[in-house]
Amino acid sequence: MVKTVNKTVYNFAPGPAMLPREVMEQAQRELLDWNGTGMSVMEISHRSKEFIALAEESEADLRDILKIPGNYKVLFLQGGATSQFSMVPMNLLQEGLTADYLHTGNWSGKAMKEARRFGKVNIAASSADENFTTIPDRDNWKLSDKSAYVYYCSNETIGGLEFHETPEVGDRPLVCDLTSHALSRPIDVSRYGLIIMGSQKNIGPSGLVIVVIRDRRAVQQSPVFI
Amino acid sequence: MVKTVNKTVYNFAPGPAMLPREVMEQAQRELLDWNGTGMSVMEISHRSKEFIALAEESEADLRDILKIPGNYKVLFLQGGATSQFSMVPMNLLQEGLTADYLHTGNWSGKAMKEARRFGKVNIAASSADENFTTIPDRDNWKLSDKSAYVYYCSNETIGGLEFHETPEVGDRPLVCDLTSHALSRPIDVSRYGLIIMGSQKNIGPSGLVIVVIRDRRAVQQSPVFI
Repeated sequence: MVKTVNKTVYNFAPGPAMLPREVMEQAQRELLDWNGTGMSVMEISHRSKEFIALAEESEADLRDILKIPGNYKVLFLQGGATSQFSMVPMNLLQEGLTADYLHTGNWSGKAMKEARRFGKVNIAASSADENFTTIPDRDNWKLSDKSAYVYYCSNETIGGLEFHETPEVGDRPLVCDLTSHALSRPIDVSRYGLIIMGSQKNIGPSGLVIVVIRDRRAVQQSPVFI
Repeated sequence: MVKTVNKTVYNFAPGPAMLPREVMEQAQRELLDWNGTGMSVMEISHRSKEFIALAEESEADLRDILKIPGNYKVLFLQGGATSQFSMVPMNLLQEGLTADYLHTGNWSGKAMKEARRFGKVNIAASSADENFTTIPDRDNWKLSDKSAYVYYCSNETIGGLEFHETPEVGDRPLVCDLTSHALSRPIDVSRYGLIIMGSQKNIGPSGLVIVVIRDRRAVQQSPVFI
């Protein structure tokens, strides 16, 4: 039934990336009968106990790998990281507050442009004048006093500009598009208010974005909910 | 490698629904090597010529099945039909116009509630007083003069209330959540400004929504872009 694959193809595209062979083979084996249900995982209800168990296990595994503290929520969402360019300001950029953006390349630029549709945006630092070849000195950043959040992209994959350390922004909520770093190294989640991880580089097939967000009910350290 | 399935399971849930056996078997066969690429369709770039050909063929097939006129765009989107409860008013409910809703059950009710976040909503007709058992007489509908669109759900799957004919609303753009009717019968697409078809009942796995929308550049018959 299953075609024998004799050739090995290497895909060096930045995303969608190759998936591990053993994962693909397991998905193939289970495609018509997942977990003894007699159905594909694509056919069963999201309310079924089998699917809920899968979702809970996925979240527990991610929490384990990233050491996500209990006061953070984990959201598995559609839309890719790009959808968060608007979701973040729509949810966090309240009237009277300013969103601080570190403009270090293409992706942070797109996120900043989108945020302007929803509220006040401050370019706290930009390396546009250096053609995105260097991250401005921390001493020269102009962060807002009433900051809704500080947004940055930890690795700008088009220009190649990368943060090697988590920026220090005081008690302002730090929002990071961590897509190309995701699951490639340990991170200290507690430094962040919200982390965006598009799936297609290091996590799985494209189309999914994982958002890790500090729960306002657990921590009231900022003027907004994260 | 592939587990032999000896039992046949029938899934009578309203969605996600069963997928045709031959489709699932083809997906399984091609999971590790799609179309001779040596990669899974989940691993290849959305910009590759192979994937673009697949997307174009899918759209062409849908246009053929539904006889979609050339002045309509077809959008394959994430988020399910529910995402369109907000997308429709965000895109179509302009200042100074009113969105007319036919409230015939749970799904149109949810769509209406969401639209109120974005602009002026008029309940043009409601069967709430009859506990959603009958569609109000067309003669009693109160449609707006400056209507951004008229929204209805062609089949309310929870209460069971169904439109057997496309409502007549003059030159107002008609927006229909056609999810549970989608691909189950011929429809006259030209009667609609926008059609919402969640995939999970009759089209494919859940998570996809297909939107068919009249192109404003081709037809200027309404005050808004559809």
